[in-house]
Amino acid sequence: GSEERFSCKAWLKSVWEFCKEDTNRVTFSLKVGLAVLLVSLLILFRAPYEVFGTNIIWSILTVAIMFEYTVGATFNRGFNRALGSLLAGILAICVAQLALCTGRVAEPIIIGISIFFIGTITSFMKLWPSMVQYEYGFRVILFTYCLIIVTGYRVGNPMRTAMDRLYSIAIGGVVAVLVNVLVFPIWAGEQLHKELVNNFNSVADSLEECVGKYLKDDGSEHPEFSKTVTDEFPDEPAYKRCKTTLNSSAKLENLANSAKWEPPHGRFGHFFYPWSEYVKVGAVLRYCAYEVMALHGVLHSEIQAPYNLRITFQSEIEDATNQGAELLRSLGKDICNMKRSHKTSLIKRVHCSAERLQRAVAMHSYLLTSCSDLIPPPDTPSKPLLPKLTHTLSSTVYDVPSEPLASEFYSNSLAKSSNQLLQTQNTPPVQTESYHELMRKQSRRLHSWPSREVDAFQEEDGALNVDFLPRMRTFESTAALSLANFTSLLIEFVARLDHLVEAVDELSKLAKFKHEELHKEQV
Amino acid sequence: GSEERFSCKAWLKSVWEFCKEDTNRVTFSLKVGLAVLLVSLLILFRAPYEVFGTNIIWSILTVAIMFEYTVGATFNRGFNRALGSLLAGILAICVAQLALCTGRVAEPIIIGISIFFIGTITSFMKLWPSMVQYEYGFRVILFTYCLIIVTGYRVGNPMRTAMDRLYSIAIGGVVAVLVNVLVFPIWAGEQLHKELVNNFNSVADSLEECVGKYLKDDGSEHPEFSKTVTDEFPDEPAYKRCKTTLNSSAKLENLANSAKWEPPHGRFGHFFYPWSEYVKVGAVLRYCAYEVMALHGVLHSEIQAPYNLRITFQSEIEDATNQGAELLRSLGKDICNMKRSHKTSLIKRVHCSAERLQRAVAMHSYLLTSCSDLIPPPDTPSKPLLPKLTHTLSSTVYDVPSEPLASEFYSNSLAKSSNQLLQTQNTPPVQTESYHELMRKQSRRLHSWPSREVDAFQEEDGALNVDFLPRMRTFESTAALSLANFTSLLIEFVARLDHLVEAVDELSKLAKFKHEELHKEQV
Repeated sequence: GSEERFSCKAWLKSVWEFCKEDTNRVTFSLKVGLAVLLVSLLILFRAPYEVFGTNIIWSILTVAIMFEYTVGATFNRGFNRALGSLLAGILAICVAQLALCTGRVAEPIIIGISIFFIGTITSFMKLWPSMVQYEYGFRVILFTYCLIIVTGYRVGNPMRTAMDRLYSIAIGGVVAVLVNVLVFPIWAGEQLHKELVNNFNSVADSLEECVGKYLKDDGSEHPEFSKTVTDEFPDEPAYKRCKTTLNSSAKLENLANSAKWEPPHGRFGHFFYPWSEYVKVGAVLRYCAYEVMALHGVLHSEIQAPYNLRITFQSEIEDATNQGAELLRSLGKDICNMKRSHKTSLIKRVHCSAERLQRAVAMHSYLLTSCSDLIPPPDTPSKPLLPKLTHTLSSTVYDVPSEPLASEFYSNSLAKSSNQLLQTQNTPPVQTESYHELMRKQSRRLHSWPSREVDAFQEEDGALNVDFLPRMRTFESTAALSLANFTSLLIEFVARLDHLVEAVDELSKLAKFKHEELHKEQV
Repeated sequence: GSEERFSCKAWLKSVWEFCKEDTNRVTFSLKVGLAVLLVSLLILFRAPYEVFGTNIIWSILTVAIMFEYTVGATFNRGFNRALGSLLAGILAICVAQLALCTGRVAEPIIIGISIFFIGTITSFMKLWPSMVQYEYGFRVILFTYCLIIVTGYRVGNPMRTAMDRLYSIAIGGVVAVLVNVLVFPIWAGEQLHKELVNNFNSVADSLEECVGKYLKDDGSEHPEFSKTVTDEFPDEPAYKRCKTTLNSSAKLENLANSAKWEPPHGRFGHFFYPWSEYVKVGAVLRYCAYEVMALHGVLHSEIQAPYNLRITFQSEIEDATNQGAELLRSLGKDICNMKRSHKTSLIKRVHCSAERLQRAVAMHSYLLTSCSDLIPPPDTPSKPLLPKLTHTLSSTVYDVPSEPLASEFYSNSLAKSSNQLLQTQNTPPVQTESYHELMRKQSRRLHSWPSREVDAFQEEDGALNVDFLPRMRTFESTAALSLANFTSLLIEFVARLDHLVEAVDELSKLAKFKHEELHKEQV
């Protein structure tokens, strides 16, 4: 009803886009239609109907329930259904024979009790963690058992009922499998292969997008944090794909489980293809993607380094990012083409750029500590400064009283002393002029959210103003360290790439990828 | 077979543990048994069987397929089944009447075509993203339609067939719902409530565990990274729970979706209880948990700050951690008890501890930059150092040649210059004696993995030694910055807690949690 208000054309267009995005969707739909039609023909034509009778409707049910998107998943579900039906049939026949021997009065009692136990046991077993994947099989056991034993009791001859039903289920299963395999098969292995390659690209894209935004963002048009807390960043399409990559572990595992059921096909031509290795590579890739997420967290964190500081390391950060992304894409491309190539020069370049970034950060590290005028110069390190400093600090700031009683006094005195600290920190100009201008812009932003401070709140003693929650104060030095944080995460990302290269190498070995011509890279 | 080798006692014990962990599992299993038994009685007793006939077996199928763990999920699935059956029934009767009018020859053709179209359309629609949750409903439409129209064609009178089947499906549905609601109901809302509270506790636990380990770990008995890359940390139980928290978004959403179907019950006594608000709080909590994961990433990162440096800020880090964890637990407890209490003093203490940590890091920031002897002292900032430094650096290190041809020469010259840099960096003792000792211990660890360097590898020109992948070099300064990283993440975690407090407050308002006595906290 309400959808008709939208223009019909727009709706059709979105359907068209949906189909074009993955034509397998249309293929799958048509295949289901075909499979159901084929089974229905068994009833619509007189000859097969007279052979099988009304039990043939079970084959329709089987097709409708068994037909899955990929070949492997259909095999898996078919296996569940077949084994479940078989077990249920055997059980039902045994119990029915047993009940028959006990006489007319005891028979329904025994049947009732057996139904109760089967229901309880199958339901309990499907909750067991390692059995969860066979959930469907347990459902099949339950209802097949009930159907066979109950109709056997009423119609008589449970053996006949069971066999007829098994026949028609088998027919439905065979039709479902044949249509799924022979008509434009959608292989889970192929999907898994594509999915993994896509994951490589989306992590690379997301890395570049995140770093690019970090270096471009001058803090002027930043959205409110409260709006972005829901993890929706509409202007970051790659981030969204990276997030799906992080959540793809279940999908990859599902596909790998399905792929294991599939016979060798197409490019994946040998038996025992290492599908589980794909899952492992995916795990290591996720391990790298965690760092991208952490970088993204810094990009959208409450505490931000000023823009000027960020662009100090622009070229190094960009270089490390580009090299890392290139390595990722090249690994993805190798998997995609099922080739095995030397990555030495690429790895080397990534390492060099990471080392350059490290060196740059090390050299300019004084920039990251903007309150350096407070602390003694670093060229007098032989003096045991630490204990002394800690001691003088503890007289004013340390020793938090653990009782809430004293907290008011404490926070007041602390706020005062911290204000003094902040003032002495901010007064002397540490950096050049342009840096200072940007710092002011930044500080306006920084001070926009700790507007309601702890003490201001305390004065409304007892009033029920839970709306106005106090905000944390942030020091400029912490803001500057946020950049150190960003570069550290980027370097850690590069360090983790080594493991990814190893994992991909292991995969290409086990999957027998072809070696690329060596001189191609060495020349 | 293979399971019987284990002692039967151990197996029984694990089953017992599994039941004790959540007694609802046993309840659920027994309820399924009961529901199936009740439906079977309709056939086992003569009277109802004579009324309904063999169609009654559909009610067994309905119970077996419809019975879900929670009340809400059962309602939801029942709705899917009921609406699906109804739609399929109406459609089937219409098409059957239409086909009947067209005569004996055209009838099966029209039926066949309609089956094909229903199969195609339902399969396509269930792939549509917003329809995925009704996947079961589409399956029901498909097989119900096929069954009704096909048996209608063979047996005649599709109206009668449809109605009989709808009756028995309705009976099965009613039995399933009644047993699920009346016999020890397992409410999705209750589960959701518990799950959210557990998430609060597991994030708090994980934070404490991670920080505790970071401060205790002196790098002596660190496991190999390659072994921990699979994300298995057997000695960190809280981390595992935190990871399930991160993956709990689907679970929370599922439970909230189910909970919306449930009538008011128990503690959740008013209509339109804000279940979706639970999901939102869960999202904000996950946003905090991301920081814990990032902290965990630093704990297990390749690049580690030396132990001595870490314990410099021990008391501040521990204090911030404890306060943050306490706030988390207190929020979780409030939700658990459905109470609303002032968190002002607690928030204040958290902020104070975070500020103390910031101040401590700012004061000791020179410790984080161990190669400070290379760079000019920070009290000459008016000079435009940056462009000059960048320029001198670029003559040796910059300008990466993009052609792989030049990479060998480049990497050699770079390695030499970087070695010189490293030597000059490492020679002068920057810190006190004990720090140096620990640094040596640390560097042994650091230099254990970049054992095979880029140049050593390059010499094996052309040899197919992909096993020996080069490793990235890490500078000590970067290692020290890893601590800055850790503290920044901790501070960011605290900053995000503000949003969590707000989200919980919003939930407690919408869910009408009771206010706690004010003087209890203010005293």
